[in-house]
Amino acid sequence: MGRLLRQQKKTVALAESCSGGYIAHMLTEIPGASAYFEGGIIPYHNRHKAGLLDVSEEVLAQKGAVSEETVAQMAEGVRRQFGASIGLSSSGIAGPSGGWAEKPVGTVWIACATEKGVRTKKLQLTADRGLNIRLTGISVLNLLRQELANISE
Amino acid sequence: MGRLLRQQKKTVALAESCSGGYIAHMLTEIPGASAYFEGGIIPYHNRHKAGLLDVSEEVLAQKGAVSEETVAQMAEGVRRQFGASIGLSSSGIAGPSGGWAEKPVGTVWIACATEKGVRTKKLQLTADRGLNIRLTGISVLNLLRQELANISE
Repeated sequence: MGRLLRQQKKTVALAESCSGGYIAHMLTEIPGASAYFEGGIIPYHNRHKAGLLDVSEEVLAQKGAVSEETVAQMAEGVRRQFGASIGLSSSGIAGPSGGWAEKPVGTVWIACATEKGVRTKKLQLTADRGLNIRLTGISVLNLLRQELANISE
Repeated sequence: MGRLLRQQKKTVALAESCSGGYIAHMLTEIPGASAYFEGGIIPYHNRHKAGLLDVSEEVLAQKGAVSEETVAQMAEGVRRQFGASIGLSSSGIAGPSGGWAEKPVGTVWIACATEKGVRTKKLQLTADRGLNIRLTGISVLNLLRQELANISE
């Protein structure tokens, strides 16, 4: 991934809610990450999604934090904040508590924003918190890979 | 740590540079972390330390990103940004490149800010990037533990 980002001279910023820093950790474990990783925001509480990432209060109230609209605005917001080529985001219910009928534990939305627009994806993961964090991270990096390889699903 | 934070009704926010999200990941892997974890900022580039965390440009220019003054301002800045009881920060040279005579690879500063003030600590770690990230994370959590247990070194 680092190689593709370097080749294309692109930079990345992260807005991680349910993945809680795991994606940033994966990226920054690699030597030389500072060449393409601008930084990230972990807005664990909803008020920080609005305050730090400009997610609209209306979207948060009407669609909820775990929604396509919220992750899209998070990815666009963090891309703008850091002046990055690509903004990536996650928001979901990692568990074990916090789920309900409409959005059970393991419901996760992810997004990838570029100058061309935003792509989003819904994941329906497991009941295991640790596994949900890891699967979310890998899925977000896969969105990034598809973006860099110019693959649309 | 979660138990102590709950008992004392305190919340935490993180400003992670060289630890790159690892501390946030450790905290958010624990179920129920949202009760005491407000969120974090990973200002991987210096301009984001100034722009997002109000670290003074003068301090960055004169003392450098890896300095006592910078981590102190990062911890205070993130505490204020998130409205948390405690702000924690890290900034260092994880390696393998980036070191020089005065600040070799493995030089790391960490800080803990509360309403009472800021405590800082210098670490002189290893030549191994992965190990430096982990040791920084554990050292920051130890600062937090000392703060909650009211221990001063």
